Amino acid sequence: MKPEDNSPQPEEVNEALNQDLLQDLSEQGKTKELVEMFEELPTMDVAEFLSEKPLNEILAHLRKLDLDDQGRIFSDFAHDLQLEIFRNMERRECAHLMGHMFSDIRADLYQELTKDEQIELLPYLDRKVREDVIILSAYPPECAGGIMTTDFATIFADMSAAEAMAKVRKDAPSKDMIFYIYVVDHSMVMKGFVTLKDLVMSEPQTKVIEMLSEFFVYAEVNEDRESVAQKIEKYDLAAVPVLNSLNQLVGVVSHEAAIDIIQKENTQDLEMFMGIMPTANDGNYMTTSSFHHFKKRVVWLVSLAAIGIISGMIINEYQGVLEHFIILAMYMPMMAATGGNTGSQAATVVIRALSLGEIEDKDWYLIIFKEMKISFMLSICVAFLTYLKIAFLSFSSLLPKGFTMSYIGVTIAIAIAIQVITSALIGAGLPLLVRRLGGDPAVVASPAITTIVDITGLLIYFTVAVHTLGIS
Amino acid sequence: MKPEDNSPQPEEVNEALNQDLLQDLSEQGKTKELVEMFEELPTMDVAEFLSEKPLNEILAHLRKLDLDDQGRIFSDFAHDLQLEIFRNMERRECAHLMGHMFSDIRADLYQELTKDEQIELLPYLDRKVREDVIILSAYPPECAGGIMTTDFATIFADMSAAEAMAKVRKDAPSKDMIFYIYVVDHSMVMKGFVTLKDLVMSEPQTKVIEMLSEFFVYAEVNEDRESVAQKIEKYDLAAVPVLNSLNQLVGVVSHEAAIDIIQKENTQDLEMFMGIMPTANDGNYMTTSSFHHFKKRVVWLVSLAAIGIISGMIINEYQGVLEHFIILAMYMPMMAATGGNTGSQAATVVIRALSLGEIEDKDWYLIIFKEMKISFMLSICVAFLTYLKIAFLSFSSLLPKGFTMSYIGVTIAIAIAIQVITSALIGAGLPLLVRRLGGDPAVVASPAITTIVDITGLLIYFTVAVHTLGIS
Repeated sequence: MKPEDNSPQPEEVNEALNQDLLQDLSEQGKTKELVEMFEELPTMDVAEFLSEKPLNEILAHLRKLDLDDQGRIFSDFAHDLQLEIFRNMERRECAHLMGHMFSDIRADLYQELTKDEQIELLPYLDRKVREDVIILSAYPPECAGGIMTTDFATIFADMSAAEAMAKVRKDAPSKDMIFYIYVVDHSMVMKGFVTLKDLVMSEPQTKVIEMLSEFFVYAEVNEDRESVAQKIEKYDLAAVPVLNSLNQLVGVVSHEAAIDIIQKENTQDLEMFMGIMPTANDGNYMTTSSFHHFKKRVVWLVSLAAIGIISGMIINEYQGVLEHFIILAMYMPMMAATGGNTGSQAATVVIRALSLGEIEDKDWYLIIFKEMKISFMLSICVAFLTYLKIAFLSFSSLLPKGFTMSYIGVTIAIAIAIQVITSALIGAGLPLLVRRLGGDPAVVASPAITTIVDITGLLIYFTVAVHTLGIS
Repeated sequence: MKPEDNSPQPEEVNEALNQDLLQDLSEQGKTKELVEMFEELPTMDVAEFLSEKPLNEILAHLRKLDLDDQGRIFSDFAHDLQLEIFRNMERRECAHLMGHMFSDIRADLYQELTKDEQIELLPYLDRKVREDVIILSAYPPECAGGIMTTDFATIFADMSAAEAMAKVRKDAPSKDMIFYIYVVDHSMVMKGFVTLKDLVMSEPQTKVIEMLSEFFVYAEVNEDRESVAQKIEKYDLAAVPVLNSLNQLVGVVSHEAAIDIIQKENTQDLEMFMGIMPTANDGNYMTTSSFHHFKKRVVWLVSLAAIGIISGMIINEYQGVLEHFIILAMYMPMMAATGGNTGSQAATVVIRALSLGEIEDKDWYLIIFKEMKISFMLSICVAFLTYLKIAFLSFSSLLPKGFTMSYIGVTIAIAIAIQVITSALIGAGLPLLVRRLGGDPAVVASPAITTIVDITGLLIYFTVAVHTLGIS
């Protein structure tokens, strides 16, 4: 953020400075200058500044601005605050404000109103706004229709560049940037697009059809939002047009929406992977109720605790061995933890690479082979360390007669080496298997892998011990 | 992706179709039509199609296109392929191609050449390109300078809209979209910006200074790339200007770069959190060597295995208790696993909320209080389940005389309830503490939390058991 001319070094002028600037003007009661700054500064900074104020002050400030600025700043408020402000305004004022909001944010807000509030508000809205809100609200939030905006500019293919430019000047939604100008026929079927730069650069008499890009990336209105975001990411687009089943242009998803979706999907994948159930209306950590947090975590926690009894039963089974070799019990937790860590590491890397499209499940044998090599190296390190620990920490008092510390050390080291390799293969293999079966690999939660390799680990541990130490 | 007019329903026309289209033309030997399609289709689709071909075929195809198209398609190839193609071209041809690449990708490629190759190539480059490459290569890849492009358009504040438009027409980099036009003085100090739309919409005689946005978001050339991406995300920008310490405009970071950074930072955070060391030059899963993967994973794995011995020593300490109450050993793995899972869940949620800016470390007491409420609910569920399991699975044969199954059940249930609450508080508290101390909360790895709560869990378990069962 940077005020006028002889400004200080860039590192000193930042968002915090804008907040201070507004705060100072506000404290000194310089209302006129404050309102001027509201119009000048990035709307997000103004929205942040106002968010901290009491409700009546927010309303008083907003009302001093023209409706365009009001709509822009209001669109940058958090959902909760938008709703609160709305409920403290007269319906007519709400309707005016709505007429100047970004269409996608407006539709989100409308959906958060109660049925009664919606019905009360509708008659006050302009016909165009009303139709827009109703149509956009009809799409589920996980699809292209649910995240698109209806603010876009269209031209016809048979226009000249000059005519097209004139239409854009007339139609252009005042509140948004223009990235692409969409070329449609008279029934709104999309024919292609030009950029504003194409129009500006061309000779006035050039026909639009001559500069048109006919092969364009688009999203289908029911397409999953993640797939829409991936298109924007892959093709480096500023926005992607959304078409209905008749190929009519019905909206546009912008790169801002794409970033938002990418962040949400990343959060969901991370939560799933850590054994937290994603739910439809996940919001901010703080505004989500404790009970909602609880519900998201309890399922995996209780299920895995229930499965955990299997490990207990294995220990019970080998009770005799443990009583004889108490030293085996000492290294049991390390065995379990190392397996869990190795498995989770492998799963993390494979799931992320799958979701970024770096690898495909059809290459599973290459991936498994690679994980085998990696885990072989890991197993040597861990086994070596384990042997050293056992040989030198000298709890020889715990040994039954006839066994040397180094012999026990080798036994446990072998067991842990096998555990590391198995765990890596399970961790890498499960997500690949789930993808192969058509599921989302992120459902293979790290806690589940930990629980599985706990069980396999104990089996490996006792089997190796029983065989090398010759006990039963 | 959508070809001409009577196209099929959108769901059937997609990226795969474009690939098929190109494949068909290629197989039928329709070279002319193929080259035409290369010019028409999104460059990413063409790049993907060509990537699958042998090197000499790629070269032959590229050479049929004009240099602009060559540069655009070549920019969309993977780094490795770019390098391979480059090493099979004459220096003069390389230099021509470089002159038509996107400046940020060109600088990346240049940095991957060996010192000798760089020196050999430089004399062939145009002076402007040469300077650009050398300057961009000087910035480390983690800062704004390392990810910015030098393709941008500038105008002066005292120009009229018509003059400005004429300058943009003349200067506009042919290969990129124009989002913003930057207003600079004659020593390139940035004064503000206008959008192309602002220019198009204004009267020809309006002065640029009248429509200028003086308060603008910008990045400093040495600013961390994550912070740059966050600005683009927060302010919904299409691009952010990069200024040096003299406030001169030196480059632009686009929203495409921001998405790229967000994905990379998400991967890094995830890996760190799962106990995988991020390194400077992390690439694709497949192209990264097994040894490099090994190095990234081994540190945490071996360190935690070493710490794991503490758990073993606690078990050794309470050996007497375990021998007396073998049933306690059976529920030990569940105790450890549940603690690890609870702690990791809490850490996941808190780290993600911190990184999305939903919470701040100064609100730590609110977060801890919230986690206390959540974990209290979780502990009741888990404890209840544990009691039921113990009471009904009836391994009463394992009990010493004088103890009932339900008494043991209550003991273990209490221990696990305490473990769930402690683990959640440790999992939520550690990332907050690290952030408070100025570090990146994602360094609090889930495996580390698991290892810590393994230790605290065993201490809780045996302390509760010793006290309620009255043994020592």
